[in-house]
Amino acid sequence: MNLRIPGPTPLPPDVLLAVGQQMINHRGAAFERLFGEVSAWLKLFFETEQEVYVLTSSGTGAMEASIANTLSPGDRVLAVSCGSFGDRYDEIARAYRADVTSLKFALGQAADPEVIARAVREQGPFQAVILTHNETSTGVLNDVQAIAAAIRAAADPAPLIMVDSISGLGGVRLQMDAWGVDAVITGSQKAWMAPPGLAMIALSQRAWQAYETAQNPRYYFDLGLARRYLARHQTPSTPALPALYGLHASLRRMAEEGVEAIAARHRALAAHCRQRALDLGLGLYAQEGRYSPTVTALTLPDGVKPNDVLKALVAQYDIHAGSSKDPRVGVIRIGHMGHCSIADLDAVFAALAELLSGEISAASR
Amino acid sequence: MNLRIPGPTPLPPDVLLAVGQQMINHRGAAFERLFGEVSAWLKLFFETEQEVYVLTSSGTGAMEASIANTLSPGDRVLAVSCGSFGDRYDEIARAYRADVTSLKFALGQAADPEVIARAVREQGPFQAVILTHNETSTGVLNDVQAIAAAIRAAADPAPLIMVDSISGLGGVRLQMDAWGVDAVITGSQKAWMAPPGLAMIALSQRAWQAYETAQNPRYYFDLGLARRYLARHQTPSTPALPALYGLHASLRRMAEEGVEAIAARHRALAAHCRQRALDLGLGLYAQEGRYSPTVTALTLPDGVKPNDVLKALVAQYDIHAGSSKDPRVGVIRIGHMGHCSIADLDAVFAALAELLSGEISAASR
Repeated sequence: MNLRIPGPTPLPPDVLLAVGQQMINHRGAAFERLFGEVSAWLKLFFETEQEVYVLTSSGTGAMEASIANTLSPGDRVLAVSCGSFGDRYDEIARAYRADVTSLKFALGQAADPEVIARAVREQGPFQAVILTHNETSTGVLNDVQAIAAAIRAAADPAPLIMVDSISGLGGVRLQMDAWGVDAVITGSQKAWMAPPGLAMIALSQRAWQAYETAQNPRYYFDLGLARRYLARHQTPSTPALPALYGLHASLRRMAEEGVEAIAARHRALAAHCRQRALDLGLGLYAQEGRYSPTVTALTLPDGVKPNDVLKALVAQYDIHAGSSKDPRVGVIRIGHMGHCSIADLDAVFAALAELLSGEISAASR
Repeated sequence: MNLRIPGPTPLPPDVLLAVGQQMINHRGAAFERLFGEVSAWLKLFFETEQEVYVLTSSGTGAMEASIANTLSPGDRVLAVSCGSFGDRYDEIARAYRADVTSLKFALGQAADPEVIARAVREQGPFQAVILTHNETSTGVLNDVQAIAAAIRAAADPAPLIMVDSISGLGGVRLQMDAWGVDAVITGSQKAWMAPPGLAMIALSQRAWQAYETAQNPRYYFDLGLARRYLARHQTPSTPALPALYGLHASLRRMAEEGVEAIAARHRALAAHCRQRALDLGLGLYAQEGRYSPTVTALTLPDGVKPNDVLKALVAQYDIHAGSSKDPRVGVIRIGHMGHCSIADLDAVFAALAELLSGEISAASR
């Protein structure tokens, strides 16, 4: 199987072996050693001095945690979106009764720092700006560094800047401390090469100050509770051990490879993917210059239906690519995050070349 | 290792093998087959016609889901507790701004149906009564059937009856439909012999009616969203696949063994555990007649510290038993849920016999 959806991603052999280990006491010494190492390694990739909390949930749970821990009902939030996952963050803020101003960019386009800054200046003050780093649904990478700088230049005090980097971090750099990001969120099943089941989140000191007065209800996702338990290298509730075993093994590999080396490898994989697509006559859905290093959204020749291609890839090649998250976006999505090689991508394009030379239309008739 | 904490529990070999399988597309056909089987098998053990929802979280997350999906701020809740996990449910309801009346029974005692009924009659009306089925911290099994009947006899309409059976269900019967329970919650890492990472919850039709008007914020734990996705055998967010692979393998075994056969086996294991404890001169912490079939809390001879015994069991025998959850409860806890044999328990008591014949006091000096 060539699993090329944008998460869950395939596990390297050593990670898979780690996942299959027997259960242990999550209040015992072996667990505390493992969790202590995971926490230390995560700080390298979040590029932060803050602690990183590991939650047993999907990334969506950590998005909710960022809202539940820092905001109160009625707080004004600017929700920046350029796709399905930006819309999801917006919906979560609304579910918690924030007073949300939606700022939506066209699908396939990146969020524009200057447009965001203008909204902050003219429609603020906001308690928080929430946005997506890597919009998985369209294959767009937002320039979080420029966005954060523009927001800070537009308001003093600046709103909290909270970033969903679920499908970015681990494959794309996000310098939380240097860029002044207040909440960073990611998920184990993306660039981290670990199974789904864990979300990771870090808060800045400013976000922790907001925690002290935030009135949203929280218990399972209470990061204050997570902070108390992390001090002894534990979690408040029983964590998803197999995913944690996997994350521990993958972080060991990742720490050896290094933050910038991994990011460079992802940029190279993405460039290769785009070139192969263009060679085949396919289109790139994302705005030029804002291509995601971890997932590429491809448009198909006129008359070829994405679902027909996806089904044929599974049936004839055991290649699993991603469908569109959004019915308005007619693409197939190729994940190249985490454990992915040039050869994995070449196999996808060899199959696409065969299919597009006439096979698909035959299969779908 | 002899893992005898009351969860996570050891995985049988076939379950462990299943856990270590490669990732798949959680929006693909293989996943939908697997998840469809898991859902069908869970209904057998919940003894309900309702759908059972699988959440990626610990059991605590599903406790929160029961509150978030059925209640509104200010709703009156009777929180029945006879230990740490009953207290936790109480705290979650308070975190969501319910108007909570706490009804606490002495540690080691079971919740008394008549006392609960009186509270419902005299201090009601309540929107919900929340309680624990199997109080893991003290080794007490509450009589949910009698409690539910007493509540219904005490108020019309009856409050919602919501039960944390995290460490019970799968090893202890809870006839959700026949007993008229409105929310049942459990966790994969207990009697289900699967890894931690998944919680399971079912709601009655009455609870689903409450969902329609409940105002508490919810997104990640929104069971309405889970219901829409379950219709196509999927989950709203990416689920903890290794735990789900494990749960699928364990449920296959469990469905073959049968609901009552499994419950009988747990009763026999618990009876054996108690007899061996009494033979050794140890005490049973729980009220006579309300012993848990899945976990036994043992009191030690005067002057012997639980933590010394637990440390010596690990260091000298690689036996991992549970500490007290509550500083007021001086016990060690022996889990015998899920994958546990008479021989596993005998090994614990052989070690305890050696330790208590003088070794511990030497070790702790």
